[in-house]
Amino acid sequence: MNYSKHDIAQLDERFRAQLINSLSGFKSANLIGTKDKDGLENLSIVSSVFHIGSNPPLIGMIIRPHSVPRHTLENIKQTGGYTINHVNREIFTAAHQTSARYEKEQSEFKEVGLTSCYLNNFIAPYVLESKCKMAIELRSLQTLELNQTELVIGEIVDIHLDDKQAVTSDGHIDLNSLDTVALSGLDAYHTAESLGRLKYAKPDQDIEFLDKK
Amino acid sequence: MNYSKHDIAQLDERFRAQLINSLSGFKSANLIGTKDKDGLENLSIVSSVFHIGSNPPLIGMIIRPHSVPRHTLENIKQTGGYTINHVNREIFTAAHQTSARYEKEQSEFKEVGLTSCYLNNFIAPYVLESKCKMAIELRSLQTLELNQTELVIGEIVDIHLDDKQAVTSDGHIDLNSLDTVALSGLDAYHTAESLGRLKYAKPDQDIEFLDKK
Repeated sequence: MNYSKHDIAQLDERFRAQLINSLSGFKSANLIGTKDKDGLENLSIVSSVFHIGSNPPLIGMIIRPHSVPRHTLENIKQTGGYTINHVNREIFTAAHQTSARYEKEQSEFKEVGLTSCYLNNFIAPYVLESKCKMAIELRSLQTLELNQTELVIGEIVDIHLDDKQAVTSDGHIDLNSLDTVALSGLDAYHTAESLGRLKYAKPDQDIEFLDKK
Repeated sequence: MNYSKHDIAQLDERFRAQLINSLSGFKSANLIGTKDKDGLENLSIVSSVFHIGSNPPLIGMIIRPHSVPRHTLENIKQTGGYTINHVNREIFTAAHQTSARYEKEQSEFKEVGLTSCYLNNFIAPYVLESKCKMAIELRSLQTLELNQTELVIGEIVDIHLDDKQAVTSDGHIDLNSLDTVALSGLDAYHTAESLGRLKYAKPDQDIEFLDKK
């Protein structure tokens, strides 16, 4: 099955959105918690959160300015802080529901049945039901000229994990033990099953498993 | 379990790399195929490929300039083209092995036992064993000032899928049918199990499954 550049350009807009969104592979599923300067809370699901670096600990996300997370972007600009909360198996339908176009005055927490909570005096609300939550301070905001989306980069300044056992002795987090889900395309949710961890690869050595499941 | 900003700064470098790399959630696993101006092929696994937009079809990735994919970056600068190939269950150990620090003269294709192939006269090599392959033309390259990593953005100009059935009637690609794997952290590979697809969310409507697995 082949789609040429010409084929892609000719596709129906919705079909293309589904197809192209599926092509990057599996994606993270995160809820972004924010509050505006008047204290109004907002929550939106984002599938574009990605790792940028460990030292300093930087994490990025792409937000389309006219899409549902626009209130999220406005709030981040106002307060400089937001939370990232892993979506897990118990809350993925509620998480997806945050993508509905609620009015600015409506709190998605209340509308979808998730609980906001505040930790260590951070300005933005966390999702209580999430088992992996982070506080993020905005470090950089830029408009990508190619398609006018916003690249938001922040620094991870606080990490909360429900299960201490989820962190292995070398620092790796076992996302399965936190029930974290993966997204594909616009709307397909998945749990993951481990194939195992692989050792650091070296040119003169065959690949080995750190553990074998 | 809580890691404060202070705790994060104090962590051992390798522990922090494992921890922070795990925090964004599940990641895509892709092989990037390139060729330099003299025809020398290169292949490297990248976990930072992410969706940027559907129209035009844009896809991004983060590359650390001094890391193993540095040859990839050099080749992309030289030729302006690269391929993205989904890592699947049959090839994930070989894919991981491309992260070893081979010399510039060594082809990772040969070293790890994957097969390069050329399709529709595109300049960069594909991975024959991958079931979802794309040709990408470089559109933008920038250094992120916060940590000197490179943000590479390209346009998807050709798509090859092994299984026609993988594309559903609305354009969504069933990644499970292509055996595409997900990554977490630096080295943990996973297959995915579908929880189902959810309908487009509306404020006044309960969430519904498009399909229920």
